[in-house]
Amino acid sequence: MKIIVQKYGGSSVADSNKIKNVARRIIKSKKKGYGVVVVVSAMGDTTDKLLDMAYKINPHPSERELDMLLSTGEQVSISLLAMAIEALNEPVISLTGGQVGILTDDIHNKARILKVDSKRINKELQQGKIVIVAGFQGINNNNDITTLGRGGSDTTAVALAVALQAEKCEIYTDVEGVYTADPRIVPEAKMLSEISYDEMLEMANLGAKVLHPRSVELAKNYGVNLIVRSSFSSNPGTVVKGEIQLENIMRISGVTCDKKIAKVAVLEVPDKPGIACHVFSELASANINVDMIIQSIRREKVNDISFTVSEDDLDKTVKIMENTAKKLGAMGVEFDKNVAKVSIVGAGMASKAEFAKTMFQALAEENINIQMISTSEIKISCLVSQTEADRAVRSIHKKFKLNGFEIEEKEVG
Amino acid sequence: MKIIVQKYGGSSVADSNKIKNVARRIIKSKKKGYGVVVVVSAMGDTTDKLLDMAYKINPHPSERELDMLLSTGEQVSISLLAMAIEALNEPVISLTGGQVGILTDDIHNKARILKVDSKRINKELQQGKIVIVAGFQGINNNNDITTLGRGGSDTTAVALAVALQAEKCEIYTDVEGVYTADPRIVPEAKMLSEISYDEMLEMANLGAKVLHPRSVELAKNYGVNLIVRSSFSSNPGTVVKGEIQLENIMRISGVTCDKKIAKVAVLEVPDKPGIACHVFSELASANINVDMIIQSIRREKVNDISFTVSEDDLDKTVKIMENTAKKLGAMGVEFDKNVAKVSIVGAGMASKAEFAKTMFQALAEENINIQMISTSEIKISCLVSQTEADRAVRSIHKKFKLNGFEIEEKEVG
Repeated sequence: MKIIVQKYGGSSVADSNKIKNVARRIIKSKKKGYGVVVVVSAMGDTTDKLLDMAYKINPHPSERELDMLLSTGEQVSISLLAMAIEALNEPVISLTGGQVGILTDDIHNKARILKVDSKRINKELQQGKIVIVAGFQGINNNNDITTLGRGGSDTTAVALAVALQAEKCEIYTDVEGVYTADPRIVPEAKMLSEISYDEMLEMANLGAKVLHPRSVELAKNYGVNLIVRSSFSSNPGTVVKGEIQLENIMRISGVTCDKKIAKVAVLEVPDKPGIACHVFSELASANINVDMIIQSIRREKVNDISFTVSEDDLDKTVKIMENTAKKLGAMGVEFDKNVAKVSIVGAGMASKAEFAKTMFQALAEENINIQMISTSEIKISCLVSQTEADRAVRSIHKKFKLNGFEIEEKEVG
Repeated sequence: MKIIVQKYGGSSVADSNKIKNVARRIIKSKKKGYGVVVVVSAMGDTTDKLLDMAYKINPHPSERELDMLLSTGEQVSISLLAMAIEALNEPVISLTGGQVGILTDDIHNKARILKVDSKRINKELQQGKIVIVAGFQGINNNNDITTLGRGGSDTTAVALAVALQAEKCEIYTDVEGVYTADPRIVPEAKMLSEISYDEMLEMANLGAKVLHPRSVELAKNYGVNLIVRSSFSSNPGTVVKGEIQLENIMRISGVTCDKKIAKVAVLEVPDKPGIACHVFSELASANINVDMIIQSIRREKVNDISFTVSEDDLDKTVKIMENTAKKLGAMGVEFDKNVAKVSIVGAGMASKAEFAKTMFQALAEENINIQMISTSEIKISCLVSQTEADRAVRSIHKKFKLNGFEIEEKEVG
């Protein structure tokens, strides 16, 4: 049996009519002869509502109990979606992460999937049922419920596609596909018909919300045929894959912007070997990911170490750093939430200097100050003030003539 | 370790302040040296809200998917209650029915508990934690989520008390204890300081909503020390137990009223052996409980068979009966939702005729017609029109002078 895995995000199942719409789409895929496995997120803003309830009762709930609470959001949507499919007389069954056998590690709130047991799903598929799986959640070895963090349903979908050796994995969302920039910021942004895993990975890491980075990583490692498309139209969407057509390699795929980050600085750290290691190992053991890092020399034997973390991790990070600063004899810790990371992503980026020059020029023309810079094989990121971020994105998008794609593609293909 | 099991109903955890109040009560019990296991229902009207969502999508959802949906209600309340206890710095853990190992049969929506595995709870208690368990739910052998039906959290609590050999099982609710009648119908109703398992069982079966019948049955079978009390006061409540003081034996404990029932009649059934068996075996295999039954002779060789079922089961019952009627050559099926069962309950009821006479007199004085009668060792029930039910309860309560208890008890004790 050919298997297809489809993932529908929270906005695709936000109310009963949207759930019925998704049910019809799913049945259409089944009628095409697929064994259909569907991953669903919590309806609309359920997760935020649950968090509100929690914080009213306890401003600092344990991560285990948060997972117990949040995982109910997906359980509600899988059962409702299954009922919508039942109403259309198709055999169906909903399964929680635990029932599917999605085994994760113990890191509550951002667990990583260790193993997927496909036995139960295969059994239900063989009985002709559509299988609806709760995204975002799993269980650890102790039989406790874990969640994979925001966007974790994408990862669930790709992990299932791998475990079931699915023909393809479709990620349905409220936009048509992957764009050269967020269309809410850059109205003339263009949809990409294809993008490489690596580019998508960078774009996801850099704030493009359309796919969760871990899901892209997983898709890349196992060569999953991944498609991003809209649950409200029949547009074919964007294909994420290993090799892309030659004519697309030398270009910039898009401009991204991540506002959910914060800058932390440890001031006047004595310059001794092992100091940076000390700073970052404490963060690592608290499961905090550090992104951009700058070590600047203030005067002889004294450095400032600055880095960025996710806004969600800021409180924890500052607490840990204040401790570390004391131990190291540093002067203190500062942080700034009014920052955003603006990035350009492009496969290859052979001539990085050329791209960098154009990007910095675009920012300079808008009088936007660059606070940090980081680069990889396929991206260049600049940290700027958050209030200037949208202007930065628009300026860069224009400078690289990204809205000109449609014509270019027509000429070539 | 002495263990206490406490159960808090939906009205006791209806909002964040009530949840915090319950958290404080629980910690008080722990400070008295108990190992505390707490069973919680869904908050306030959560279950009804979830049902509304379901019916909007599918008027006849499968029972399995309903259980998947409804069980989230308790999962939300256990995690929030655990967070409230964390906020007061007491170690705590919440567990779903599945995690506790509450194994049930396969009858979704009204599953029966087969086994409780106390391993996980005991492990957590030994680590000094308060254990919060989701009421109303379990898992079957297939690892699917089941629910125990309305009021099932009471049964969860008693089953845990049995499995953990708890010293007592306290059922916290929004009333002070068990009353001689529903105080909303009979304002002068009195609270009982004690009641026997058998009386409580009848009262629960007959519509007293304070305890679920199966929980009382279980408590009786295992001699669980069961207490019904208010989560908003320190009133000691009503003790449900095996032997009650002599002076209380010969009296009526209370008047109950069940409005959630319906009358179904199969008309002009040919009078052949095995007919009644046929009628009721079909209902039994659909897991529908039949309560009062009357077979009346219409004319030679033709009978009418009337019976009552829970209102929830009416649709299903009528569908089955219409089929059965055809097969049996009966004339047709009628049903009436405008009925209520009014009952008196009293341990012993040695002189049943005397009690019956007084009850019928009370109804006659109010010109209330009796449609069916059924009796047991400790109760007499009359089916009346639902619109006359409250008046019937008040009249019977007065006729038996049930509001005079307080004075009587003072004289004796």
